[in-house]
Amino acid sequence: MKDIGIHKTIQIIARANNILILGHVNPDGDCIGSMTALSLGLKSIGKEVAVWSGEPLPLKYRFMKINFSEACQESLNDFDVIIVVDTAVETRIGAKLNLTDIKIPVLAIDHHIASENHFTYIHADQSQSATGCIIFDILKSLNVKITKSIAEAIYTAIITDTGCFSYSNTNYRTFEITLELLKSGINTSEITSIIYDSHSPEYIRILGASLKTLALISDGVAAIMYVSSEMIQKEGLKSFDTEDFVNYPRSIMSVKVACMITESPDSDILRVSFRSKTDDYDVSKLAKLFNGGGHKCAAGAKIKKPLAEFIPKLKKTIEDFLKKENNKS
Amino acid sequence: MKDIGIHKTIQIIARANNILILGHVNPDGDCIGSMTALSLGLKSIGKEVAVWSGEPLPLKYRFMKINFSEACQESLNDFDVIIVVDTAVETRIGAKLNLTDIKIPVLAIDHHIASENHFTYIHADQSQSATGCIIFDILKSLNVKITKSIAEAIYTAIITDTGCFSYSNTNYRTFEITLELLKSGINTSEITSIIYDSHSPEYIRILGASLKTLALISDGVAAIMYVSSEMIQKEGLKSFDTEDFVNYPRSIMSVKVACMITESPDSDILRVSFRSKTDDYDVSKLAKLFNGGGHKCAAGAKIKKPLAEFIPKLKKTIEDFLKKENNKS
Repeated sequence: MKDIGIHKTIQIIARANNILILGHVNPDGDCIGSMTALSLGLKSIGKEVAVWSGEPLPLKYRFMKINFSEACQESLNDFDVIIVVDTAVETRIGAKLNLTDIKIPVLAIDHHIASENHFTYIHADQSQSATGCIIFDILKSLNVKITKSIAEAIYTAIITDTGCFSYSNTNYRTFEITLELLKSGINTSEITSIIYDSHSPEYIRILGASLKTLALISDGVAAIMYVSSEMIQKEGLKSFDTEDFVNYPRSIMSVKVACMITESPDSDILRVSFRSKTDDYDVSKLAKLFNGGGHKCAAGAKIKKPLAEFIPKLKKTIEDFLKKENNKS
Repeated sequence: MKDIGIHKTIQIIARANNILILGHVNPDGDCIGSMTALSLGLKSIGKEVAVWSGEPLPLKYRFMKINFSEACQESLNDFDVIIVVDTAVETRIGAKLNLTDIKIPVLAIDHHIASENHFTYIHADQSQSATGCIIFDILKSLNVKITKSIAEAIYTAIITDTGCFSYSNTNYRTFEITLELLKSGINTSEITSIIYDSHSPEYIRILGASLKTLALISDGVAAIMYVSSEMIQKEGLKSFDTEDFVNYPRSIMSVKVACMITESPDSDILRVSFRSKTDDYDVSKLAKLFNGGGHKCAAGAKIKKPLAEFIPKLKKTIEDFLKKENNKS
């Protein structure tokens, strides 16, 4: 589906009076920041706004000034428009709603390519580093005053999706918007601390155990690490979020391809994350070998195999993959 | 000694033709970035510039376009002015020079308060987040074109001294200068990767072992971690840089005071780092209890005691310190 562009997006929002805002499953900083900024901004110019979420917010994002209403399938058609932020994939919509029978338009706003879907409109601006940046542009066009609360939400969106200005999606516009946000008097280091200094002692201990599993492959060009269900259970937990762990093998100077395996204590599925630091190695190809998918620099797969059996297989696959890719060049 | 201000600083530099640039011991990203930017900038407007360093640069900073000349005590008086960047403390000057007998003026440029010293001039602008930002302002005032190489050096200075825009010294001017730097076409994520993805496998493994030593004190308000000489020796190393390790106990949500102990394999001295996340606890007071010093939020001490004996003593001291501070409020 074609991107409708920012002007049409603004037109659709400007004409609506009663707006429902939805996010995606497992809402992150960009999703919650975008929902918060958009709802506060639209309310400030007199719109009726409801925000629905299918799940409670992670603790670290609760400082944002967002108010959720109760989701209600029956009242869906009472809105003028539904805006879904930070995803253009229908199946990833957060609030558990059935959108097939609704008669009102649904607009998806995202900064990633839209795949096959049935939204009425899509605005997917890939030049922006976060959905929060698109929301900022929309609010400015609607003459919304960027208050401190709105700026805090957009700053959160930006730092979570750019890894605090470190990822390659960080660009001139990212810093330009940031500079505008600072004018509202936000305390950037306080927000950064809320987002990044929010670990539990268990996180630190399991990370420690995981780092000790580091293994280098092909003279250090690749590295793998894992978290076993035993490590998670040892801390008295049922599951554990290891999303950021893959950044550690990735942070080794010689490493071009990093890989992190997470064994779940409550299922026999292994989650594998692949990261590439260079264009020379496309890790989506590696993920495909395990029936997974993703992008060139970030991909993943789910594997049904015991951890001890999978690790040597993964090492061999990565070795072969690197040899093959090196022979190409 | 009084800060001479930016205008007088520019005047002194503008009048000099033959300039020597020095940095500080253990040069970091701000020091090397400032030396690089200043030397490239001044050369571009026709100045004769020499840069002396007392030690080789850490590997991760070698991408910067800096050329060192050989230090020579005898030729010191041939320069019109000596500029010391990123320190206003004489004893911390990098190149091992005896400045007492020299007849030419010495100008120190830093973004921290100047302590007792014998520099001819000091420009210490505490409003700036890095010395690199002051150098940027100086070069702009001297009508230097900010080339890609100069911008890369100043960006390095900024991200190393602000923790990639996360510390509380990050301000409007930091982002404003960053935006100017981006105009020269620098690749910010590439620079960030060079600086932050430069770890060794040993770093990751020792960090893992250290994280497993995490101990919480006073219901998680404080946390300590250590690196033993055994951990370092196990990886076949003689010494190890644990500078960033204290950020891990600090990153725990409940923690207000974090502490990291490093045992040296080649001496019987323990290095202890203290960090505070809040104004409520001044860790320089904690450091003083062990004859150390520092600031409210970052302090340290050196202790001659076996690790196993020191840990329980430190825990008790922190518990008592927290009780005392809590009773005050």
